[in-house]
Amino acid sequence: MFNPQLNANGELQHLLSLDGLPREILTAILDTAAPFTEVAEREVKKLPILRGKSIFNLFFENSTRTRTTFEIAAKRLSADVINLNISTSSTNKGETLLDTVDNLCAMQADMFVVRHASSGAPYLMADHLRNTGRNDIHVINAGDGRHAHPTQGLLDMYTIRHFKHDFSNLVVAVVGDVLHSRVARSQIAALTTLGVPEVRVIGPKTLLPTGLDKMGCRVFHDMRAGLKDVDVVMMLRLQNERMNGPLLPSAQEFFKVWGLTAEKLALAKADAIVMHPGPMNRGVEIDSEVADGAQAVILPQVTFGIAVRMAVMSMLGRS
Amino acid sequence: MFNPQLNANGELQHLLSLDGLPREILTAILDTAAPFTEVAEREVKKLPILRGKSIFNLFFENSTRTRTTFEIAAKRLSADVINLNISTSSTNKGETLLDTVDNLCAMQADMFVVRHASSGAPYLMADHLRNTGRNDIHVINAGDGRHAHPTQGLLDMYTIRHFKHDFSNLVVAVVGDVLHSRVARSQIAALTTLGVPEVRVIGPKTLLPTGLDKMGCRVFHDMRAGLKDVDVVMMLRLQNERMNGPLLPSAQEFFKVWGLTAEKLALAKADAIVMHPGPMNRGVEIDSEVADGAQAVILPQVTFGIAVRMAVMSMLGRS
Amino acid sequence: MFNPQLNANGELQHLLSLDGLPREILTAILDTAAPFTEVAEREVKKLPILRGKSIFNLFFENSTRTRTTFEIAAKRLSADVINLNISTSSTNKGETLLDTVDNLCAMQADMFVVRHASSGAPYLMADHLRNTGRNDIHVINAGDGRHAHPTQGLLDMYTIRHFKHDFSNLVVAVVGDVLHSRVARSQIAALTTLGVPEVRVIGPKTLLPTGLDKMGCRVFHDMRAGLKDVDVVMMLRLQNERMNGPLLPSAQEFFKVWGLTAEKLALAKADAIVMHPGPMNRGVEIDSEVADGAQAVILPQVTFGIAVRMAVMSMLGRS
Repeated sequence: MFNPQLNANGELQHLLSLDGLPREILTAILDTAAPFTEVAEREVKKLPILRGKSIFNLFFENSTRTRTTFEIAAKRLSADVINLNISTSSTNKGETLLDTVDNLCAMQADMFVVRHASSGAPYLMADHLRNTGRNDIHVINAGDGRHAHPTQGLLDMYTIRHFKHDFSNLVVAVVGDVLHSRVARSQIAALTTLGVPEVRVIGPKTLLPTGLDKMGCRVFHDMRAGLKDVDVVMMLRLQNERMNGPLLPSAQEFFKVWGLTAEKLALAKADAIVMHPGPMNRGVEIDSEVADGAQAVILPQVTFGIAVRMAVMSMLGRS
Repeated sequence: MFNPQLNANGELQHLLSLDGLPREILTAILDTAAPFTEVAEREVKKLPILRGKSIFNLFFENSTRTRTTFEIAAKRLSADVINLNISTSSTNKGETLLDTVDNLCAMQADMFVVRHASSGAPYLMADHLRNTGRNDIHVINAGDGRHAHPTQGLLDMYTIRHFKHDFSNLVVAVVGDVLHSRVARSQIAALTTLGVPEVRVIGPKTLLPTGLDKMGCRVFHDMRAGLKDVDVVMMLRLQNERMNGPLLPSAQEFFKVWGLTAEKLALAKADAIVMHPGPMNRGVEIDSEVADGAQAVILPQVTFGIAVRMAVMSMLGRS
Repeated sequence: MFNPQLNANGELQHLLSLDGLPREILTAILDTAAPFTEVAEREVKKLPILRGKSIFNLFFENSTRTRTTFEIAAKRLSADVINLNISTSSTNKGETLLDTVDNLCAMQADMFVVRHASSGAPYLMADHLRNTGRNDIHVINAGDGRHAHPTQGLLDMYTIRHFKHDFSNLVVAVVGDVLHSRVARSQIAALTTLGVPEVRVIGPKTLLPTGLDKMGCRVFHDMRAGLKDVDVVMMLRLQNERMNGPLLPSAQEFFKVWGLTAEKLALAKADAIVMHPGPMNRGVEIDSEVADGAQAVILPQVTFGIAVRMAVMSMLGRS
């Protein structure tokens, strides 16, 4: 069966989504990332792996934080990075997405890191590259609409493996606004693929999508019941635009019911870890006591995020 | 006679305009660009020619696309590139253009790539550098008002030479809104200097400047008559702000009369090439069938544009 | 006594303010900067001192000019520079300053260059780094509120030493809007520490802070009296937002009374030098005749500014 993310040899050609990515590829990325975590400890944090390659950060939607992580990862691999904030540029001039891609390819781009408000935009780019025979150019999805944010999902898996070593005996809970979260989609796909036996999804009915059971998740509308004896708590960010919106009473109300406090966390296993994709809304989806507490691995997630992005880029640069 | 673009030895000192540039210099730039097109094919797309040089992209007018091409060209020559979008910066603070230049020179700039809304701004900078004896600092005009866009003109010449080999027996048509186009001015100057025997300009009376005949052009107000038996069709971009403006009925009307369709293109020679400076307005000045057709060389133009900019920068870095 | 700018060995740990920095450190920075002024004269303006280090330009307040000087300095030391304009980014998303710092530290930042509208923000960051044991990460204040702009003060001291050789016999005047000037605070602190016997402050009562006498300054409200026989005139920039504000009649009135003209400058010593932190308001705080005259050392200030920033960065990179 055709997989748009793999090349003819079954190697990673584009990173578009964790949904549909074979377990061996997922594991290969995590394995490749491991030595990169040590690069950061060196005096000179640079490897020549992508020297002379041109990587374009195509941000059709502004995200300083995500753009920065990719920029650092690319520079540590010695690539040339060109940042394009396209929201105010060519698309204004009436150029289509694919014309922009064609132009940047003509400038001998090697890799595109794409953030786009429309779900599927990175797929469209990857299709176009394949249809026009440019198999030496790679696309990394840095977040498309509500669809996927695969490098976030990968760094989450790296973090879980780092602290829990083995996926095959874990209970993992994803908590919060799953409905609007591209991060949650990527997490659930990866957890399932990597063999986590129990993936729980916890949130209010208004903020959970339908079909979670078909994705193999157990759904909880009661946070305390859902957190019982879990190994990993993956909190989601509540988007500012949701607060005080029609689906929610208020940020304060949300915190009361769905915010992760020490008291609620005590229901999980004693050695449970707490994750968050950032940026955090302290006092909304997570209490500061937990965010800064001994079980939080939120900052290690960020560190592993650089290594995971270096891994993806180096694998694509090779294929 | 004094030429502000040349130094005392007759070498390129600044690239301000193709108008007034001797044929030998134009040809030398194209010749220098040729091997740079191969750099992009290498595993490591980098040469150490401008290592340690500081190149400032001074964009007083936003243009992600043009800025990107210069940034890539400079990075492939190993220069340090500093991007300055000045529209929202020092000029706000009341500093004059020449004070900004003086300050950046004091930071040991080696080269300025300048985009400015005012025609002549790069000349003003070049004059100021000469008057203050800073002959080791170079200016490249990346588009000034309606005046000139010399690197665009150069990449167009490179493209024509690449596909047609010889300028001395060509009929070349420039089509569209010549009146507002700095690109057209640069193209006509270069075509004439390089010995193209017949340069045609095709467009509605309201969008053609006066004096085209003195520049050696044949003027056509009928597109079909103008395209008859040409070797090269150079389409111009219709600026969005012109559409629906007082000079034009509508984008649809414009396309009907002045848009390049396969039917109109059939009047040109069978092996005619179609060029466009981008970004294209599909369905306005050019039909998608032509833009994506076999005669279009629009993407090679982009590729050659990087090589030509590398050539100009390397020549200036040497003089 | 604890000094937040020094480490346990008394070496520079953070550069937050010139107020409180020991004379030996100030002198060490100036001494370290000296050879860096020669780097700029070389063919390849690059040293490998910070190769592989990640320097983050954190600009919570826009300043293209200052950001550029730090970017150039860091690139000439071969560091990887990541520019973050945070005004429109994470803080929008509700993340706190310290969460942003923690995240960037988790990305293995080595150095932060910080511009912030709030006085004390860089101190807050330095405190946080110390409290969390991250002594290998350094903060450079690039201007915080009205408080300090230490690298500007340092380049001013470098300039004075370059032209006057010895601080111990100078009369130095700081002229203009001292009240709103973080530059003036840094200058006065450094001049005093370096042993300048007479520091004069000249300006209208409405634009001078109280307590200048306690800082060891002689206050003048008459510009001609204040300039009498000085060795160094340090003009301050009049912020645009002050002009026509309640504290001042008009820019023209200000110039008449407080603008530095050739006639007023004639009251200083014949070999007095004139300094300005830029960008200049010609015809407001300084006349063009003086700004472009033989006594002005305003452009050398800019050149020395790069060397001084390289010095600070290289010292921090070592400690």
